[in-house]
Formats: sequence, structure tokens, C-alpha cells
Amino acid sequence: MKYTLLIDCNDKKGLVYKISKVLYENDFNIETQQEFVDKENNKFFFRAVISGEVDKDKLKQELLKEIPCGNIRIFKKRKKRLFLMATKEAHALGDILIKHYSGDLDIEILGVIANRENLKDLVEKFNIPFYFIPAEGKTRIEHENEMLKIIEPLNPDFIILAKFMRILTPNFVEKFPNKIINIHHSFLPAFIGANPYKQAYDRGVKIIGATAHFVNNNLDDGPIIEQDVIRVNHEMNWEEMREKGRDIEKIVLGRAIKLAIEDRIFVYGNKTIIL
Amino acid sequence: MKYTLLIDCNDKKGLVYKISKVLYENDFNIETQQEFVDKENNKFFFRAVISGEVDKDKLKQELLKEIPCGNIRIFKKRKKRLFLMATKEAHALGDILIKHYSGDLDIEILGVIANRENLKDLVEKFNIPFYFIPAEGKTRIEHENEMLKIIEPLNPDFIILAKFMRILTPNFVEKFPNKIINIHHSFLPAFIGANPYKQAYDRGVKIIGATAHFVNNNLDDGPIIEQDVIRVNHEMNWEEMREKGRDIEKIVLGRAIKLAIEDRIFVYGNKTIIL
Amino acid sequence: MKYTLLIDCNDKKGLVYKISKVLYENDFNIETQQEFVDKENNKFFFRAVISGEVDKDKLKQELLKEIPCGNIRIFKKRKKRLFLMATKEAHALGDILIKHYSGDLDIEILGVIANRENLKDLVEKFNIPFYFIPAEGKTRIEHENEMLKIIEPLNPDFIILAKFMRILTPNFVEKFPNKIINIHHSFLPAFIGANPYKQAYDRGVKIIGATAHFVNNNLDDGPIIEQDVIRVNHEMNWEEMREKGRDIEKIVLGRAIKLAIEDRIFVYGNKTIIL
Amino acid sequence: MKYTLLIDCNDKKGLVYKISKVLYENDFNIETQQEFVDKENNKFFFRAVISGEVDKDKLKQELLKEIPCGNIRIFKKRKKRLFLMATKEAHALGDILIKHYSGDLDIEILGVIANRENLKDLVEKFNIPFYFIPAEGKTRIEHENEMLKIIEPLNPDFIILAKFMRILTPNFVEKFPNKIINIHHSFLPAFIGANPYKQAYDRGVKIIGATAHFVNNNLDDGPIIEQDVIRVNHEMNWEEMREKGRDIEKIVLGRAIKLAIEDRIFVYGNKTIIL
Repeated sequence: MKYTLLIDCNDKKGLVYKISKVLYENDFNIETQQEFVDKENNKFFFRAVISGEVDKDKLKQELLKEIPCGNIRIFKKRKKRLFLMATKEAHALGDILIKHYSGDLDIEILGVIANRENLKDLVEKFNIPFYFIPAEGKTRIEHENEMLKIIEPLNPDFIILAKFMRILTPNFVEKFPNKIINIHHSFLPAFIGANPYKQAYDRGVKIIGATAHFVNNNLDDGPIIEQDVIRVNHEMNWEEMREKGRDIEKIVLGRAIKLAIEDRIFVYGNKTIIL
Repeated sequence: MKYTLLIDCNDKKGLVYKISKVLYENDFNIETQQEFVDKENNKFFFRAVISGEVDKDKLKQELLKEIPCGNIRIFKKRKKRLFLMATKEAHALGDILIKHYSGDLDIEILGVIANRENLKDLVEKFNIPFYFIPAEGKTRIEHENEMLKIIEPLNPDFIILAKFMRILTPNFVEKFPNKIINIHHSFLPAFIGANPYKQAYDRGVKIIGATAHFVNNNLDDGPIIEQDVIRVNHEMNWEEMREKGRDIEKIVLGRAIKLAIEDRIFVYGNKTIIL
Repeated sequence: MKYTLLIDCNDKKGLVYKISKVLYENDFNIETQQEFVDKENNKFFFRAVISGEVDKDKLKQELLKEIPCGNIRIFKKRKKRLFLMATKEAHALGDILIKHYSGDLDIEILGVIANRENLKDLVEKFNIPFYFIPAEGKTRIEHENEMLKIIEPLNPDFIILAKFMRILTPNFVEKFPNKIINIHHSFLPAFIGANPYKQAYDRGVKIIGATAHFVNNNLDDGPIIEQDVIRVNHEMNWEEMREKGRDIEKIVLGRAIKLAIEDRIFVYGNKTIIL
Repeated sequence: MKYTLLIDCNDKKGLVYKISKVLYENDFNIETQQEFVDKENNKFFFRAVISGEVDKDKLKQELLKEIPCGNIRIFKKRKKRLFLMATKEAHALGDILIKHYSGDLDIEILGVIANRENLKDLVEKFNIPFYFIPAEGKTRIEHENEMLKIIEPLNPDFIILAKFMRILTPNFVEKFPNKIINIHHSFLPAFIGANPYKQAYDRGVKIIGATAHFVNNNLDDGPIIEQDVIRVNHEMNWEEMREKGRDIEKIVLGRAIKLAIEDRIFVYGNKTIIL
């Protein structure tokens, strides 16, 4: 049996020793192991991919005996189940569809919700359920509840906002803590909010970027998972920046999804630790 | 009428003056204009996007009167017609399909040839003709001639090798001078030839790359159009490098296609000048 | 005689023709020429390096006859004269000193002012006048006036803030429009103000940057000349980010100085056009 | 007492457990710890910064009892002692001098040897011994022996080739295994040998780079420590590439030195593992 073992707790002497002792005595093989201590906050983070015969519940009991304070999570290795949300742009969604199709992203796609209808044809080419849920004439909460009725029963591991251009309220966000990943089309915290390419153009920056982050209750303010940038110059208007930025958006989102499905991301405060 | 005007010739004093005089006197509006002088070789390169009422043949005559030595090309702005070739990997081909679908690449795709059959389903989702032309049991020339029989009548503006993993002979290449664009999965001239990711892994590099180039008669040695790189480290085996590299491959190929369809690339000797 | 010719004016048809006509008829040789049209604002920008026998005042007259609206500047090629300001960090200042020493930056350094004394020894190693002007016990204006008494008589082409950690008031800034270049240790507009590395650490970004910009009357809000970035991760505390960032700061500042002394930067509104 | 503990040996189950057990039982505090298993070669690499009261020889004995096969190195934290070699370019050497001066590189510089004399003045500004050892009229071995007579008695931790433009023979190299760090002005393995910027220009690449590597007996073929790149284009001749490349050369060399003096680099075969 192969597991991913994630532990975070207050740091103290001997944690690695105690964890590796339990793994050794239960005859686990460690494929990879990383640990990190946040000294400012005295927090210990540990991730290992392990294989062995012992059941995961028993392993958890053994570990808790040695490190009682620990927040211990053990995941059996399996394909993660993702739900996607989009509006009308095809690049980020299309990149996930192609990576899923080719096996470059080893995921199950449960479905796609969009508040525009134009992506229906693309999604259905790949035999993935598409739900058109327009927002017009509904309150935010009504619109979200309509979407939740589809998503919640599916119990996805992660919800990916592949250029979903609406703000989610706490009503929605709080149901999926550290499970909603958004791609923002700027190098956060620069250019929060609407039309960041226009903002970047107006400010005359020489580099633009994209940011994948977990969604919390503050707009574009959740824990950052991954960022990347590209050069721009005075010759480009904001539409050209947007077009050039799309490649970075999809790449950054793809990397964040990869980290998420491999259970590599710890969230602590408003930051991520990636092991 | 909107045209792209491309001129290259030996440099001498007054070329910009003479060109702009002709454009001015024929009442052309210049949308963008760039010029470059290669001093080492005394060569002048000029590109302009112009609009006006005068016919392109008449404009060419007028220009030739002023700069008789000039290699003058005038293209009416139109959607370029591309033919794609692939083997079995979906990422580069899929990226072009999505960009074509969404309009991010304003091209016509005439068809896709592959020497494996697995991409047929993906290509046909997008209603694009797919031709499975296996190479087994054929000489190189026989295989190429079979492909040429499909491609030549279509007279494509460019042929894109979207991870076509076979070497083309002069028999094929010479029919499409500066029209075949390949994506090589390394930072050329490092790691020419087979399995560059394995080569990169074995050499222990800290950065890998991808290179889009025109195909000439020497393997991986044609004029470079675009390159980009990403960081790797000792933790990654060559399969992981390959996977991470795929994002760069498709991005670099996409940028090269963009430059090609906008008629921005001059080839001089074994180099490109991009205006 | 070699000149740099800079022109900016409202765009209209035939500008390149008229400029190149004057250059041609006055028998100028054009070494490099670039032009850019800002379509949003209908502005034309032109830069050329030219050589010929005609006097620069006569050339200006001739050009004004053809393009009366033009803001025309003609500089004889000469070593630019820079004045440097610093506080206590050695990296950005030291990089300029080394580049000046080795000839990589072809500049004259008129002197260095600092509001701390520790850099005196470094600067004087290179036989450059060092002025220690502490700010303690003085109003901002008093402090600035003391510095102006040294700088103004020297009439520098550019003033370089090589990590000068004080805010300049309009009293100072307005005397040197588009002549003061600052290096800010963040990827502006992210992390304006004090200790941007601490701000970046607190926000949990995965990339940090540096920004060289002209100084105007709003803190960290002047026209951006150049930016660059590097990756950081959760393992780095803010002091480590600062240390890693120093390399980027000095590189970005060095590039901006290079662009400035080659007369390549146009300022329009709050942006730069770099030709 | 603070130590850096480095272990490499054949991988087997329980290594982390056994190491952490020894550290725990000897009451060591672990500041940072990283480990890596090279699965292809079944090799285990471990680095920890630890503090405690136990003597390093005793700790080594205790560790050897648990992991007898281990190549165990324990370094007391101290300022590393570097010897520098250069030829005539100031940028890489100057950057080390400034970083040493400012404390950004916490090193002792034992001296500088150059085979040209022009850097003498720069080095002596910083009160560092400069040895001018010309190569003219000497065999390689004679020249090297003259340099070795100065370097060997100083027993440096690392020898830094800060653009030392001569090839070292096995006579020299074998005396300092994995202690000589060179900066090569290309993105290796592209452009091995003389004038890589000219080679890069001639090949028409769109990106150039720099590579810091340990020196072994094959030219430019030692284990790579760090690399970085910058964009170039058709407008730049090779001298401009060289000038732009200098910034990257010095940055990459500086990062490699940093990794070396922190005892972060393992060499295995022709690769580095950086923990």
C-alpha cells in the first residue's frame, strides 16, 4: 500500500526521530521525505510518500502515540477528483482538458460549471459533463446555491477556477477550505481585482504575471501556491498583454493543480509551504 | 487594403527615406514599421504593416524603381493556412488545437498527419482531417512521398512539426524552404538528437529548454526562431524533466507560430531576424 | 560627428518620410533607427543614432521646418555625467563603481552623497568624491538643500539613487525632471514603501523583484524603466529574500542606467518608451 | 557548538531513523535537515545543520556505529577560506570583492592570482594580496607549479576561477578535487571552449547563459552547480552579448560560491546534489 503522510505541529526536538522510528518499526519504506520548520512561528511540517503493509488507521494511531500534538493526515494514493469552473475563456480550461486527455494530469474531472454557455461544445468534446448556470437575474447566493447543488454531492478533492470571472461569497468558499484554487491574471499582490492587464498596461510595467492561489474570503488574497511572469514592453497594448499572459496563466494553474493533487501543499496562516 | 511589406537587401544610405517616400507618395498609412541593419553582413531588413488604396503589384513596381536591388514581398493580410505533423504526444498539438478553437491563433488548420494513430481521436474532435501515415515497412522516401501527396496539393503557408519524431530528408525539406517549423525539446545547440531530456538529466544541468526553429537539411540545426527555459534540479529524473518541459515546448512553439503567421521572421544565413 | 536624435510629437502620416528626407538630404548616415507610435494617445516617438558633417543646430532647424510640432532633441555622443546617492548598502553602489572602473559603464561619476558614513571608505577607494550629509536634526528641506548645494553646480545628466533610503520632496525632485533614477526593491506596484522584502515575505509570494524607475512626486510611482524577478520559496525568511534580491536590484539598476546614458528612454505620461 | 553534518552512502531502509536517533540521543538540536535518495543509483544524501554540546569526533563515532557504510563529514561552522584566480576581466572578481567587503559573502579571501596585471590595482584597493603570475615563456606545468607554490601552503577551502581564462591541467586539478569552481560564460553544454558569446552569436540563439561548475579534467565538463540565462536578440552583436552576459556570469558564480561555503553541494558522478 502506498500512502502520502502529512504532519504539521508545533516544532520540538526529536520529531523526525519519532516519526521515522514509527515508520521504521512498522516496516515502511520511505520513497521521498521532506520536512520544514518555520522558525518564526515554531511550526513543523513533514511530508513523506511511504509504502508498507500496515493499515493507515493503525499507522495514524502509532504516530499519535509518539507525537500527540500532531495534525496527521494519511492519504492512500489515488486519482484526485476535480471539479472545474469557468466563464468563457478557453485557454486555462482547455489546457486542463488536454492534460487530462493525454494523461499528463492524472485526475478525474467530475464536471465543468460555467456562467456562460460558449465552452459547452469544447467540454463535451471530451465527454465531460457541462453545466451552464447563468448568473443573470439571480442574487449571488441563489447563483452559488444552484452551483453547490451540483458540486457538493460530488464531493470533489479540489475545485479549480479556470478563469471563473465571478467573486465567490463566504457562503460558497467556507464549504471548501483550502480546496478551491484560482488563477489570477496578475502577479499578486499587484493588480488585485478587475482587468489586471489593463491595470498593468496603465502602470507601464515591464513584466506581467499570473498567480495561482487558494480562495479565501478576501478577493485575490488567499495563500499563493505558484506564480510566474513574462516580459512585456511599450509596444504591447493591454489586449496583447492579455493574449501573451494566457500562456502563463494556464502554465501556472497547471503547476498548482499538480502540487495539489500530489498533496504537497500545506497552508499555514496566509501562506503555503510546498514540500 | 492592409498589407505586410517585407524588404531585405544590401544596406546603403537612404533606404528608409526611399521606402517611406514611396509609401507617402502613394498615400499609404503605416501602422507599424521596423527596420534592422546587420552591420556585419551589411544587410538591411524592413517590415511594415501598411494600409492604403494602391494595388500591391503597383506598389511593388514603385518600390523597385527606388530600390532596385531589393527583395520585396507584399502580403495581403489573410488567415495563414497551416498543416500540422505529429507523432504521438498530445501537448504541442493539443495546444495549437485549443488556440485555434478559441481564436487565440488566427489560423486555418488544413490537416494533421501522424505516424502513430493515437492522436486521431483528439484531432477529429475538432473536425480537422487526420491522416495516419505509418512509416513501418517503408523507406524514408516512400513515407515522405506518401505524406507529400497529401500536403503539396494543399500548398500550406507553414508546416508545423508538433513533436513529429522523425527526421525529414532533403527530399521533403527542400520543397518548403523556411516554411517548416519544428519544436525541439532542448535548449539548442545543447542536446541535439534523440531524447534530449535524458541527455540533460545525464549531464546534470540545472535548466532545461525548448527551441522552435526552421527545418533545414541538418538535424536540429536550422535557424532558431524562439527559445525558452525552466529550472530543474537533482530531484527530477528525466521523465519528470520531460513532463515539466512539455509546457515550455508548447509555449515556445506557439510563440514561433505567432511570429510566422504575422510575417515577422526574416531568415538570413542560419539566423532569424524578427521584426 | 555622431549624434543621438530623439523626436516625439503627435503622430501623423509621413513623419518617418520627412525625418529621413532631412537626414538623407543633409547626408547623414543612420547607424540605428527605431520608431514607435502609441496609437491610444496618437503619439510618435523616434530615436536614431546618426553621423554626418552638418552641425546639430542646423540639423534641428531643418527638421523643424518639416515637422514643426516636434519635440526634437539632438545630443552629441559624449560620456554622461552621473551623481550617485546612497545610504548604507554597498551592493548597488559597488556594482556601479566596478562597472565604471572596468569600463562596462561608460560614465563619469561626479560624486556620491550618503546620509550614512559607512560607504565613504568604499567610494574613496575609487577616487570619487564622497559627501557625508547626515539627515539627523534637520528638516527634509534643510537636508535636501544641503545636498542640492553640492549637486546643482555639477549639473549632472542623471542622479542615481543606489539604495538611497529617504524620500525626496518636490523641492528636490522638480529640479531634475526625468533625471533621477531610483531602484526599488520590489516588483512595483507590489509592495510600495518601507521594507518590501518583509511585505513580500508576509504575503507569501513565490517570486520577488526589483524595479528601476524615474522619481516623481509620488512615492514609488514614477515611470518604470526596467524590472526583473527571482524565485523565492517558503524556506526563505525575509532577510534571505533581501540578500537574494540584492543581485536583482543591482542588475536592474545597471540596465536602467545603461538605457538612460544611451538616451533610449522617452517618458510619456507615467510610462517609458524604450527605443 | 554548531556543525554541518553531511552524509552520503548507499540507500537502505531506516537511514533517517538511525541518523535522527543518534542526533536525538546526543541531544542535538536540528536547525535544518534535508535528504535526497537518488533512486537510479540507490544513493542516499543527507545534510543537517545541528547544534549541541557533543564533540564532532564523538558524534562521528556514534553515527558510524549506526550506519557503518556512511561517508560522514562534520564541519564546524566557520568562515570558509577562498583563493581567487582571474585573468583580466573585472566583473566577476569585482562582484566577489564587493560582496566580501559588504559582508554579503561571509568568506575570507586569501589572495588573488592573475596571469595579467591589470586587476592588481582593483584587488589591492581591498587590501587583498595580488599575485601576478604571467604564463608567457613557461610551459603549462611550470606556470601551474608557480601558482601552486602560492596556493597550496594556504590550503584554501575553495579555489574560485573568476574568469581565469586558461585551462588547468590534471597536475593542478587533481590537487583540489571538488574544490575548484569555474564560471563558464555559456549555458553548458552548449558552446564549450573558446569565445562562447561568439559561438552563440554565430548560432543565432535567442537566450544566452552562464554556468558555474566544479573543474575536473575535461574542459567545461565538470559537475554543474548553477546556471542562469538571459534573452538576447538579432540586434545584439557578440560583444553586446558578452557585455550583457557579464551580469549573469557574476550572479551565477556568486550563487555557486554561496552554496559551496554553506556546504550544500554533494558531487556524485558528474552531477551535483544541492541540499
